[in-house]
Amino acid sequence: MAVTAKSEQTRRLLIDTALRLFASQGYEKTTMRAIAAEADVSVGNAYYYFRSKDDLLHELYRSLQDEHRSLALPQIREGHNLGENLLAVLTAGLKTMAPYHGLGVHFLRDAIAPHRSGAAAVGRGKSIAMFRLAVASARPQPPLALRSDLPELLWLVHMGFTFFWVYDRSPGQRRSHRLAANLAPLMAKLVILSRLPVVRNLLEDVIRLLRSARRD
Amino acid sequence: MAVTAKSEQTRRLLIDTALRLFASQGYEKTTMRAIAAEADVSVGNAYYYFRSKDDLLHELYRSLQDEHRSLALPQIREGHNLGENLLAVLTAGLKTMAPYHGLGVHFLRDAIAPHRSGAAAVGRGKSIAMFRLAVASARPQPPLALRSDLPELLWLVHMGFTFFWVYDRSPGQRRSHRLAANLAPLMAKLVILSRLPVVRNLLEDVIRLLRSARRD
Repeated sequence: MAVTAKSEQTRRLLIDTALRLFASQGYEKTTMRAIAAEADVSVGNAYYYFRSKDDLLHELYRSLQDEHRSLALPQIREGHNLGENLLAVLTAGLKTMAPYHGLGVHFLRDAIAPHRSGAAAVGRGKSIAMFRLAVASARPQPPLALRSDLPELLWLVHMGFTFFWVYDRSPGQRRSHRLAANLAPLMAKLVILSRLPVVRNLLEDVIRLLRSARRD
Repeated sequence: MAVTAKSEQTRRLLIDTALRLFASQGYEKTTMRAIAAEADVSVGNAYYYFRSKDDLLHELYRSLQDEHRSLALPQIREGHNLGENLLAVLTAGLKTMAPYHGLGVHFLRDAIAPHRSGAAAVGRGKSIAMFRLAVASARPQPPLALRSDLPELLWLVHMGFTFFWVYDRSPGQRRSHRLAANLAPLMAKLVILSRLPVVRNLLEDVIRLLRSARRD
């Protein structure tokens, strides 16, 4: 067990050192060699833990996604309305990612890399589960016809939101904060209005379109 | 003038050779050195035309975007309804990009690279102009209140569509073709229904949200 603890310690040390170097000299200019030297770990040993700098970044991104969920889940409350629950999820994400905004574009590139498609599917599933909880706990309950497809729809909107955040260069990403504050109630309003036939009809069209797109 | 023609010829030869090698052995494995050798151009000369393999890919992507517009513009016709015009734009895009689907993920990574933001803004402007024409030529005319913001909204939807295409592994990207065939009339329907207060209200909310997101 001591070995495992030591090993986890070295892993963590490499991630923390990489983060510091990414922040101070940029992702592109940071080499595995420099990370190993700065962490006082041999290059061979560093490569034992991470096959490449990209792998290190990927691990960091994954752990941030877990952190986002840990922060968001306790704030999704039964009795809150859907807008409040959504805002809690978006705000927790902004808070978790804020220190790493400079790496945003690299997270994006990591997420869309073809060899990551397996890992991406796992992350996607966990993220949809978070929106499923936000929907299931919302009071009033979203219309039954929407309840099963809504989490994936919200996840898609969240993807767009993340894209926006990556390219948001306003101080403290205040434009993203404003967008979150506007987007959450708008989605909630859309769901409420879906009780009207014309809106329900449009949403059903969107859901049909998504289902058909998923089908091979 | 002869020099310019020769120079353009070499540039074109390098792009065509790169394309062939990207297709046969993949983007990652193709080096500038291999491209130069295969094109029978000195390595130094190849670097004179393109600073890197990424630059070559970027040029290719740009020329495909121009090709997409050249193919789409004559098919956007006054008197067609909005759905027909949109489908013409989407279909022209699928047709232009089809031979390069294997490079899709690399185009995406190029488009979101931070050092490309200037070039990306130009491409975005040209693309929005294409949707502006699709909106302006549509009969019946979309409601006046929407006309100025609709092109950007359609461009955003098109971005999502492009993302979908990149990850569409169905034979001949038939899922993307089906999505285009469903998406175009749905967007047109949404615009028509925007004459109803409840739908107009929602669309105005979306537009307000986009405007506010753009503001610093």
